[in-house]
Amino acid sequence: MDDNTTTPVTVLGLGLMGRALAGAFLKAGHPTTVWNRTAGKADRLVAEGARSAPTVGDAVEPGRLAVICVTDYRAVREALGAADVKLDGTTLINLTSGDSGQARETARWAEARGARYLDGAIMAIPSTIGTPDAVILQSGTRSDFDAHASALGALGTVTYLGADHGLASLYDVSGLAMMWSVLNAWLQGTALLRTAGVDAAAYAPFAQQIAAGVATWLPGYAEQIDRGSFPAEVSSLETDVRAMAHLIEESEAAGVGTELPRLIKAMADRAIAAGHGKEQYPVLIEEFGKPGAR
Amino acid sequence: MDDNTTTPVTVLGLGLMGRALAGAFLKAGHPTTVWNRTAGKADRLVAEGARSAPTVGDAVEPGRLAVICVTDYRAVREALGAADVKLDGTTLINLTSGDSGQARETARWAEARGARYLDGAIMAIPSTIGTPDAVILQSGTRSDFDAHASALGALGTVTYLGADHGLASLYDVSGLAMMWSVLNAWLQGTALLRTAGVDAAAYAPFAQQIAAGVATWLPGYAEQIDRGSFPAEVSSLETDVRAMAHLIEESEAAGVGTELPRLIKAMADRAIAAGHGKEQYPVLIEEFGKPGAR
Repeated sequence: MDDNTTTPVTVLGLGLMGRALAGAFLKAGHPTTVWNRTAGKADRLVAEGARSAPTVGDAVEPGRLAVICVTDYRAVREALGAADVKLDGTTLINLTSGDSGQARETARWAEARGARYLDGAIMAIPSTIGTPDAVILQSGTRSDFDAHASALGALGTVTYLGADHGLASLYDVSGLAMMWSVLNAWLQGTALLRTAGVDAAAYAPFAQQIAAGVATWLPGYAEQIDRGSFPAEVSSLETDVRAMAHLIEESEAAGVGTELPRLIKAMADRAIAAGHGKEQYPVLIEEFGKPGAR
Repeated sequence: MDDNTTTPVTVLGLGLMGRALAGAFLKAGHPTTVWNRTAGKADRLVAEGARSAPTVGDAVEPGRLAVICVTDYRAVREALGAADVKLDGTTLINLTSGDSGQARETARWAEARGARYLDGAIMAIPSTIGTPDAVILQSGTRSDFDAHASALGALGTVTYLGADHGLASLYDVSGLAMMWSVLNAWLQGTALLRTAGVDAAAYAPFAQQIAAGVATWLPGYAEQIDRGSFPAEVSSLETDVRAMAHLIEESEAAGVGTELPRLIKAMADRAIAAGHGKEQYPVLIEEFGKPGAR
């Protein structure tokens, strides 16, 4: 365990997010080396105590933690692939946005060069980095994570997901799907209620209460999925679709969009057509898991 | 204010939900008269102290609160329209499932016959009636609600929404849209993560945390909608759609459904095409409010 806050770290890439990461390490007392492809981005960090490295090769060294956060995975390989860069014995934590396939491929590439590699995702905006509100996901070998968990803690709330380097990306997009879905459902209700003269502000607390309430059901519903058994303890899909039809009718009558309501009903209709009408909502996992469901 | 728990009440309709309502009134000490179109449903309630009325006319009387919960609004009019029923001076609370148009029409019909009328929606399953978990929405004239708020409190957590009798139905379907959307986003993520060997139970707490976290943003985002101004304080739609494309790509690569991811991106693409790429997510209210968005 590395719980010494004076562990030296390197931050590669000084965009908005990279600067926030380096700033948080500095604030937590880590001797911090920074590098950026173009000059000038390091000036303020240097004023705060960072050392600006002229090349990636100079910034990266054996036994030193290096965090990279650049535009995309192509830029990761470009930066780390330079002739003077020695990855052997380093630990790389890649916080660049990308997909799970790129994460797994880059893990193989880095490990073939002797590096320890963790892939991560940042579910936060730069201004929250360094506070508990910044959720940072990590995937890769457990012992590599454990060795640097303390240093990473300077960046936010860090969660280890598992050995598959693709997990951080998959959790990230799944979490974003939840974010956009909550927002879309709220917008659908807001659009509907505005036609009856209800302000967005008047409706929002109700929507908030429902979203937070339904969220608490998920662990219980997950057990149904893992068991593969979906008894209609609360409601059956056949009952649910009648209310889904109401949602479509109300949206049509109010003259607002019906695309989201129709998608909701179409998924349930499909599960009923597949013989699941007497079962409970989580049985829809079978529809969501099918590539044909588009 | 009627805060006397011995106020007599009538419950019309003794399906699963009607029986739960009558049972909760009895338990709270209200002398309770019950009626059902077909006999036999009242037996257990009578054993618990209810009076079974042979006709609706016998069950409904001036000054007495009558709660009706039957199959649909047609059945409401059939029950209350019988020749011997005197609605003049009664207060009717209609908890039958229906849409906002039916609620408004039935309000006019009942008020033309001298009744006070509140329309409601029950966001709960029968087994939770009589507990704070049962959310019951009410819309209609404020003073009619206030006169019976205490008696209704025996049924669950009762919320008054406004004078428009259609509001309870509109909030109800909007809340259901939120419920299904949270579940669908969770199913999308669960389907995706299962392809990487992650159990539904392992992913659920993360999905729960995101849903509950995003829910807390809604009141602030609602202010943007009410102001009609959407500065990109956290993120712009142009940035968001890049991550939406990742969600589609990850879903395709994993061989799971892409319908929900595609809907999410299509809505944002449309708002960008309408010139809102530099603005923040709630600007999508304009797309959700358009009847063409289907």
